[in-house]
Amino acid sequence: MIHVYTGNGKGKTTAGIGQALRAAGHGYKAEIIQFAKAERGGEYNIIKKVFKGKKIDINQFGSGKYLIPGNIDNKDIEKAEAGMKYAEKALKSKQTKVIVLDEINVVLHYGLLKIDTVKKIISKYRKIKEIILTGQSCPDGIIKIADYVTEMKEVKHPFKKGIKARRGIEY
Amino acid sequence: MIHVYTGNGKGKTTAGIGQALRAAGHGYKAEIIQFAKAERGGEYNIIKKVFKGKKIDINQFGSGKYLIPGNIDNKDIEKAEAGMKYAEKALKSKQTKVIVLDEINVVLHYGLLKIDTVKKIISKYRKIKEIILTGQSCPDGIIKIADYVTEMKEVKHPFKKGIKARRGIEY
Repeated sequence: MIHVYTGNGKGKTTAGIGQALRAAGHGYKAEIIQFAKAERGGEYNIIKKVFKGKKIDINQFGSGKYLIPGNIDNKDIEKAEAGMKYAEKALKSKQTKVIVLDEINVVLHYGLLKIDTVKKIISKYRKIKEIILTGQSCPDGIIKIADYVTEMKEVKHPFKKGIKARRGIEY
Repeated sequence: MIHVYTGNGKGKTTAGIGQALRAAGHGYKAEIIQFAKAERGGEYNIIKKVFKGKKIDINQFGSGKYLIPGNIDNKDIEKAEAGMKYAEKALKSKQTKVIVLDEINVVLHYGLLKIDTVKKIISKYRKIKEIILTGQSCPDGIIKIADYVTEMKEVKHPFKKGIKARRGIEY
């Protein structure tokens, strides 16, 4: 099935990670593919260390800079395409049951990947895999075909009080 | 700080679990306290197996039946109180940095714990710990004092099409 976590609130990536962990607890292999990310957050470090690429694997496909309009170049597109290629391999693999496409919604929103291409790939495997797409601004084309859609709505966030991203919490 | 994940959508518990994993990846100890739950879901099994109560621990305080009005008895209250006692111990512990009070919002909503008691306990530790409350129907008294509040809004869910909870996905 196709799952979407979108919206401006906290908890999208962590929900994807938590879902991977839950599935792994029942013996299903999970692959987490982090688009637009190159900084190794807490989840990256611990998953690599504890699972060693077995029950859960995590890999990053980001150029290292924050995606904002006017700041996007070929390197970002190449990384996104490499991420999607890796995702397709994971979808084809018999071992992998859960595929988390972390931040792919943002990548689609900025046009680094074509919505139709991603739709075609995930539609092909939706009956046998759990495909989880996270990130703000999920395009309507994806929402339409998804089975689960949760909008994480920000009600309160300390960033608004000037508090910066904190280690272990935001990354 | 105090974090709340509430709303009717999927991803509240998994966001709490994912946050615990992220924090552990930076060396912070996390305690997950599952209120109103007695079935050992995927996250329970894998956390106990992989972390053995060290970097992340998870414990359950539920009577084994689903909380619905008219179906609540002393056993549920005792379990909720035992969960809160355990939570207080975790909050007092120097080692533990992140405390996930999974489904506590529901427990508060049904009056199994007093809102003022929980508010008093979490307020005492909010400056030095990350306290994460999950579950539908979070009472206003908690929302008011929280730093982060995310409402997980259900946009689409296959339950509406008659699909039942699936192993590795919903539990």
